[in-house]
Amino acid sequence: MKDIIVQKYGGTSVGSIDRIKRIAQKVVKLKDSGKKVVVTVSAMAKTTDDLMNKARQINENPPERELDMLLSTGEQISIALLAMAIESLGEKVISLTGGQCGIITDSNHKKARITEIDTERIEEELSQDKIVIVAGFQGINENNDITTLGRGGSDTTAVAVAAALKAEKCEIYTDVDGVYTADPRVVKNAKLLDKISYDEMLELASLGAKVLHGRSVEMARKYKIPLVVKSSFNDSKGTEIVEVSEMEKVQVRGVSLDKNIAKLSVLEVPDRPGVAFKLFSELSKNHIPVDMIIQNINRDLVNDISFTVKIDDLSKALVICKEIANEVGASKVLSDSKVCKLSVVGTGIAGSAEVASTFFETLYESGINIQMISTSEIKISCIIDEKFGEDGLCHLHDKFNFDSDFEREVC
Amino acid sequence: MKDIIVQKYGGTSVGSIDRIKRIAQKVVKLKDSGKKVVVTVSAMAKTTDDLMNKARQINENPPERELDMLLSTGEQISIALLAMAIESLGEKVISLTGGQCGIITDSNHKKARITEIDTERIEEELSQDKIVIVAGFQGINENNDITTLGRGGSDTTAVAVAAALKAEKCEIYTDVDGVYTADPRVVKNAKLLDKISYDEMLELASLGAKVLHGRSVEMARKYKIPLVVKSSFNDSKGTEIVEVSEMEKVQVRGVSLDKNIAKLSVLEVPDRPGVAFKLFSELSKNHIPVDMIIQNINRDLVNDISFTVKIDDLSKALVICKEIANEVGASKVLSDSKVCKLSVVGTGIAGSAEVASTFFETLYESGINIQMISTSEIKISCIIDEKFGEDGLCHLHDKFNFDSDFEREVC
Repeated sequence: MKDIIVQKYGGTSVGSIDRIKRIAQKVVKLKDSGKKVVVTVSAMAKTTDDLMNKARQINENPPERELDMLLSTGEQISIALLAMAIESLGEKVISLTGGQCGIITDSNHKKARITEIDTERIEEELSQDKIVIVAGFQGINENNDITTLGRGGSDTTAVAVAAALKAEKCEIYTDVDGVYTADPRVVKNAKLLDKISYDEMLELASLGAKVLHGRSVEMARKYKIPLVVKSSFNDSKGTEIVEVSEMEKVQVRGVSLDKNIAKLSVLEVPDRPGVAFKLFSELSKNHIPVDMIIQNINRDLVNDISFTVKIDDLSKALVICKEIANEVGASKVLSDSKVCKLSVVGTGIAGSAEVASTFFETLYESGINIQMISTSEIKISCIIDEKFGEDGLCHLHDKFNFDSDFEREVC
Repeated sequence: MKDIIVQKYGGTSVGSIDRIKRIAQKVVKLKDSGKKVVVTVSAMAKTTDDLMNKARQINENPPERELDMLLSTGEQISIALLAMAIESLGEKVISLTGGQCGIITDSNHKKARITEIDTERIEEELSQDKIVIVAGFQGINENNDITTLGRGGSDTTAVAVAAALKAEKCEIYTDVDGVYTADPRVVKNAKLLDKISYDEMLELASLGAKVLHGRSVEMARKYKIPLVVKSSFNDSKGTEIVEVSEMEKVQVRGVSLDKNIAKLSVLEVPDRPGVAFKLFSELSKNHIPVDMIIQNINRDLVNDISFTVKIDDLSKALVICKEIANEVGASKVLSDSKVCKLSVVGTGIAGSAEVASTFFETLYESGINIQMISTSEIKISCIIDEKFGEDGLCHLHDKFNFDSDFEREVC
């Protein structure tokens, strides 16, 4: 329906009674402007931590189904309280759990994927002129068991509901003003972007920008739902995430830094088919996501294979690498957790030698050694020593000159 | 199924992490003895208060549907935590919300009545050798909205589930050792009863004994479910509530005191048909439950009608009485909140002049004036001045000589 707006408010946005009241006013204002409004909320900040804390005191490794049963109460509390706040402003409103609004998922507790949304109930409530409050982060499986969607789950709920309702727009309210050219806590003159493409946003998300989870952006792209990211604490316009970047020329959209990674290298791997498969399938079986796999041309019938993993997975990955190295006859496994990934993102980067050379030149001028390089259609990433991360980010941001009108400060 | 035991643990029994762990051990012990076990739990003590407090800060008069959405999370948290505790002891277990275990209610939010229980899911889980944890106090209506059962709700869930499963027994664990001949906090030599009949328990419950809500007793009686009330903090045998009292002779089962009442009198009501109807239907329309209605024989074509209400309803009842008194031409409305109700309960009391005369004699000897008297098949109640309540209770308990082997203390 053309006039439906889906809004999503995160945990800090509903973190206190006063904030819930403020959100209620924002929601009612939108409703009064003539829109049909669906609001997705997360658990109040701290509720989830409190519940996890209780669970761990009872069972160090709680069953995932029961954890979902427990944690899903967090959003249920938020939706009920927000509905009460909206009702006190005189608007018709109803709160719905994930199950009640027909969000069906697979049975992977703690990280379920939405398989289907039956919007009948939401549409029925909207047709009665109600504001509909939907619990984020949760659904039910075919067995009627409660599931949670894992990281980025509430954003995903909002986008999925928007897609299912064919909403006009999905607005993600958060504690930052939108998407910046770089992390504004690190780069002082980072600039807020008016627009960014789904693809660029996806790369930024996967490269450590915490503003939106890649999963929700992927879904928005798939169903062509215009996304807006903006602050729930002020009236800033935020950043629109749209299908295509408007400019045709190469555009570096932002720079990013991910310190949450570690590097692994398996040295002198015999150059024969199936070795890389063996290594990465074993990592995959152990649920260790791998990023930036690099294998250089072979020399002397052996290869060095390097890749990065999340820092939390390092010790587990190391054990697996050593086993496989032993099995296939590789000479050694090296690891380094004191690294970070510096990236530039923008449409058309792959076609432009200029962006890559500017990137490498900047690092060279800053005296930063590059350990690994990887590129895609719309990004270039380098692994460097962790201690140069912030410095490199600032120099890159300066060099790519995001907005010449923008007043620069020394970073 | 003959080997199913349903247990219920109240809010104080699951009031802390340690208590939840202790309950888990009790449950596992029962399971290991070869029984199929279904456990109903309430919200952890304080959770409900915390949630109500949040709700009131947001909306002084929160919509009841949203209140149910909010408060039902309390039991959902308890069942998940108890399931985790049981799993950590190595038993197979699953927690189910009211909706998941097929508890269907009407749509009277905050005080819903169970209309149907579809036990398919519970039976399926039991057949997989799991301990099943059921959220007390809640269900869903036909619209899939969450409802709560109101006062005594968790006991009612336990008994209803036991009835639907044709369980062998329903055990209600609480913070007292069972049903006493009088409130042991007031009467020091009160005796724990081994057995009591449903009817006697019902009267005791309605007369202020807080150990079991009348609603659950009624349901147990209806479906002939043997009930046991016992302590969750020790291994006392508790009290069995069974269909018929075993003795044929008149048996005073207990004495009780209810201070939570107020007395109203409408004086000189014209003696014509429909006047009492008018008064009590108006009170009923305003949801004011009335107890102990007394109208004496008429004199001079007018009647005095007296009745008692819960103390919280007094001011509302007074307004209604004055309106009706005015309308029908009664002379005056009197009220008194400084009264209490003293009762003796036991099978066959109605047929025994001895019990009544002993009751009245005891009050006379204690210098206590009787304001109103009401009797039923199995109880006699007197309204007296509030300040004599405890004193009267102790004297009655002594007089009825509940157990001559029992060592008496001066009350």
